[in-house]
Amino acid sequence: MKYRAIIHIQSLLLVLLAFGMGIAALVSHLMSDAYETTRALTSCAIGTLAIGCLGYQLTKRKAGEIDFSTNTRDGFATVAGAWLIATIFGGLPFITAANMCFSDAIFETASGLTTTGATVITDELIARNGAPLAEFIAKTHNHLSENLPIPYGVLFWRSLLNWLGGVGIVFFVLLILPLLKVGKSMQLYNAEVPGLKTDSDQITPRLGTSVIMVTCVYIILTAASTIIYKLGGMTLFDAICHAFTTVSTGGFSTKRASFGFFQSPMLQWSAILFMFVSACNFTLIIRAIFKGEFRFHKDEEFRFFLGMVTFSTIFITFLVMASCPNSIHCTGGNGTLAKHWEPYLRTVAFQVTTIVSTTGFITSDYELWNNPTALLVIMAMMFPCGCGGSTAGGMKCSRIIVVAKHLLSEIKHCVYPRTVPDVRLSGERIEQSLVAKTLAFVLLYIAIFLGVAFLLTLTEYRQPQMELRTENGELVAQAAPSEMNIKTALGASIACLSNAGPGLGKAGPTGSFGWMRPASKLLLTMTMITGRLELYTILVILLPAFWRK
Amino acid sequence: MKYRAIIHIQSLLLVLLAFGMGIAALVSHLMSDAYETTRALTSCAIGTLAIGCLGYQLTKRKAGEIDFSTNTRDGFATVAGAWLIATIFGGLPFITAANMCFSDAIFETASGLTTTGATVITDELIARNGAPLAEFIAKTHNHLSENLPIPYGVLFWRSLLNWLGGVGIVFFVLLILPLLKVGKSMQLYNAEVPGLKTDSDQITPRLGTSVIMVTCVYIILTAASTIIYKLGGMTLFDAICHAFTTVSTGGFSTKRASFGFFQSPMLQWSAILFMFVSACNFTLIIRAIFKGEFRFHKDEEFRFFLGMVTFSTIFITFLVMASCPNSIHCTGGNGTLAKHWEPYLRTVAFQVTTIVSTTGFITSDYELWNNPTALLVIMAMMFPCGCGGSTAGGMKCSRIIVVAKHLLSEIKHCVYPRTVPDVRLSGERIEQSLVAKTLAFVLLYIAIFLGVAFLLTLTEYRQPQMELRTENGELVAQAAPSEMNIKTALGASIACLSNAGPGLGKAGPTGSFGWMRPASKLLLTMTMITGRLELYTILVILLPAFWRK
Repeated sequence: MKYRAIIHIQSLLLVLLAFGMGIAALVSHLMSDAYETTRALTSCAIGTLAIGCLGYQLTKRKAGEIDFSTNTRDGFATVAGAWLIATIFGGLPFITAANMCFSDAIFETASGLTTTGATVITDELIARNGAPLAEFIAKTHNHLSENLPIPYGVLFWRSLLNWLGGVGIVFFVLLILPLLKVGKSMQLYNAEVPGLKTDSDQITPRLGTSVIMVTCVYIILTAASTIIYKLGGMTLFDAICHAFTTVSTGGFSTKRASFGFFQSPMLQWSAILFMFVSACNFTLIIRAIFKGEFRFHKDEEFRFFLGMVTFSTIFITFLVMASCPNSIHCTGGNGTLAKHWEPYLRTVAFQVTTIVSTTGFITSDYELWNNPTALLVIMAMMFPCGCGGSTAGGMKCSRIIVVAKHLLSEIKHCVYPRTVPDVRLSGERIEQSLVAKTLAFVLLYIAIFLGVAFLLTLTEYRQPQMELRTENGELVAQAAPSEMNIKTALGASIACLSNAGPGLGKAGPTGSFGWMRPASKLLLTMTMITGRLELYTILVILLPAFWRK
Repeated sequence: MKYRAIIHIQSLLLVLLAFGMGIAALVSHLMSDAYETTRALTSCAIGTLAIGCLGYQLTKRKAGEIDFSTNTRDGFATVAGAWLIATIFGGLPFITAANMCFSDAIFETASGLTTTGATVITDELIARNGAPLAEFIAKTHNHLSENLPIPYGVLFWRSLLNWLGGVGIVFFVLLILPLLKVGKSMQLYNAEVPGLKTDSDQITPRLGTSVIMVTCVYIILTAASTIIYKLGGMTLFDAICHAFTTVSTGGFSTKRASFGFFQSPMLQWSAILFMFVSACNFTLIIRAIFKGEFRFHKDEEFRFFLGMVTFSTIFITFLVMASCPNSIHCTGGNGTLAKHWEPYLRTVAFQVTTIVSTTGFITSDYELWNNPTALLVIMAMMFPCGCGGSTAGGMKCSRIIVVAKHLLSEIKHCVYPRTVPDVRLSGERIEQSLVAKTLAFVLLYIAIFLGVAFLLTLTEYRQPQMELRTENGELVAQAAPSEMNIKTALGASIACLSNAGPGLGKAGPTGSFGWMRPASKLLLTMTMITGRLELYTILVILLPAFWRK
């Protein structure tokens, strides 16, 4: 393996991260965070930059040494390594400026970079991590009641992690995966960004164009989202942070009540729109913007996605209106809604979009809708999620379509044994080997989902009864008994694997992942990264065969 | 489609059923049931016999007309039709002699014939179905406290349904499926019964030999089981009934406390043994008995099955002993066990074997073990279940092995793209098309499992609050609020699809399916039959294409 080349790329990544930390430090200063916070963020930026530059210099390439496409293993190692390195270094600001322990910081960073949006930040964080953080926060802002209990600079860093992770995954799926020769068969969707031809030899100039186009679309969406959020009544800080986490379908919010803090219908509907758009294949958006080709209606995956969102929204709205006529539990609101269809439709549409786009904003706790059918539909939608080539996680709609068509063709095959299997997506025939790989992907997904849930019940085996007292012996916080029951374990597992964010039970919409043990957090960190990199990228590096010469 | 030929075979089946009903009537007489019960059973037998004979005469074949193997569609229609007809006619004794309503009777019969073992018979049955049944029972036996509240004749008929269903499914899998040309690719396991060569033209004489051998093994197992149960202390009636339902892995018990009524360790260990043996491939047993070839250790599926049972038993015993040191909730017992390893091991081994063999006897409620890991392992084992070519339900271990090997080979394929996929079972290479079919089977299984759970939450949508009062207005029974929550819905769905028997929650080990609505019962009836006939048999007849000329 070309370790030098791999380290070289990681070093570049560190420089990028350091740049982001610098911005966070600037924001921290502008928002008048405590001096200690700004200093901590600046130190992180400088330290990361130094390590990055050092690595870059030490591994400076000789002519033609770095070549992604020549070796598949190097490609896998680079991508997996990049995500791991970014997770570790990205956690520094949490450790230094928010006083978080290692496992908390790693989890939060991975949740950010993989655009999951699951968080460990709750009031117990201060209790767990001691006084300094509370002091920093008390020094600057006393709106603990609405913002999450960490400084502004760190709030911004979380959102930035989402945003960087979002653009990172689009690059990975649309640009890097096709370069890994075998990676090509991991994806189904029409990932051919105009201008990028992987079979031609002249990759570099065209790759450059593609990077610019993808970045442009991403920035356009973010800017549009920021402007609309600002017009809708958010502060500029909140508008930028939420725009970052909407377009990346990350779902980190600066508010305790998540998006439920913003009760304005206009804000919520625009968030629904942007979450939906961000879960669509970027190739379609690029074509529409740069080539003027409006192809959405011709794309089978998009039609399926649109149909799924529309149908389940209407269906669940109907169910919820019928089964809990007097109230729908909303976070941030007063917990009741008038018997009028719009708030119901909006609340349900928000939760449906947040799940299928794997964003993870919350305006209402679906577990309290008192309707098992609705809950089952929402749980089921955590598996397919968005479209390929987007920032959304999950299995992707295209895979579900291919699997469904294959299953139907297998049933038909029993009646007409002589028919040749023919699975098509948007009219194009999918090769049988790719169909088999897709079936394998879905089954691996389910196996990992169950395996992680099983391990979670083991890592949380005993019931810790944690009491936190001040120096005077006063009871500050008492962690609820960390009973990782099956529902919570399954919910946490799929929420992290699909990068959806909130799960069920204690890790559900109004819960957090903070109460879990370090072992569980590290396990879920790996789960998020595995899900984000389309399983195979991480699974191959776990193979002993991968490391053999 | 050759409707006459199909009806002809169904008529033969009715004659067989009538014969069984006659035996039940005889047992009813011998056990001194109320006269009305015996009369009702006799009428059922005579009625069914009459219809069977009539159908047989009307559809008498001309030379060479009935030929299974010439038309796949006829084969599917015959098998599916046979199970449906048997379910409807088999329900007659429940309607006439146990005063059950149609949906209850259909459910109980399907549960018997598919060897599921899920029951609707609880005390509420008398409340639901009115006074006559209570009267019949009161006239004959007043041990309502231990037996299920139906007459002896009907108790016997339930067990007989299990037994007939068990032998029926072995015939279907080992003898009929290979004859349906396409059916051959539905099965993986080494289903070649010695003497049966499907590719030769002379099927009939060899098929005859095979039928005799399978039947012999089945009868030998049943007889051995009866003798041991009798020696262990059961009454002859109980010994026969439980032997019928053990060997068929059906799981109907005559007792309210299921097998937990028999607290004798010797009885419980022998039940564990017989359940285990019955879940092994009959081909292996036939070879061992008739050819003296002991091939168990060479069969990969058997090794996997043995390993799964052994490992999970030891693992769960360890967990349960650690997490609930003072008691393990046993039905029939006093709810506590001394801190001694044998009762724990036996109780866990019993529950593990009953789940993987899909029998459904209960000696302890695993939901009360207070250990989510153990519960998750037990739930997970409801999917793979026993070996192919046995009376057990579920996906079958062989399919799990093939899928696991395929998934591993797909991961390896990412590192070594030039390797040719090679999945082997017991050393024999599995064709890629069969691997794809197996993957499709597993995914279809999961899809049906989720779909049925979804429909169950819909059919049980409102929360009925049923009060049953005597004529004096006295409250006899009040159905608990039929809250079909997600856990219960998922548990009921997999319990019926895998023919396992008990599920989770209100349909769990100490619950029943009696409280559900008729629509749910009919849905689960179809689910049981679909699972029993390896999905495709039922799914194809739901295709519109199947009915086209």
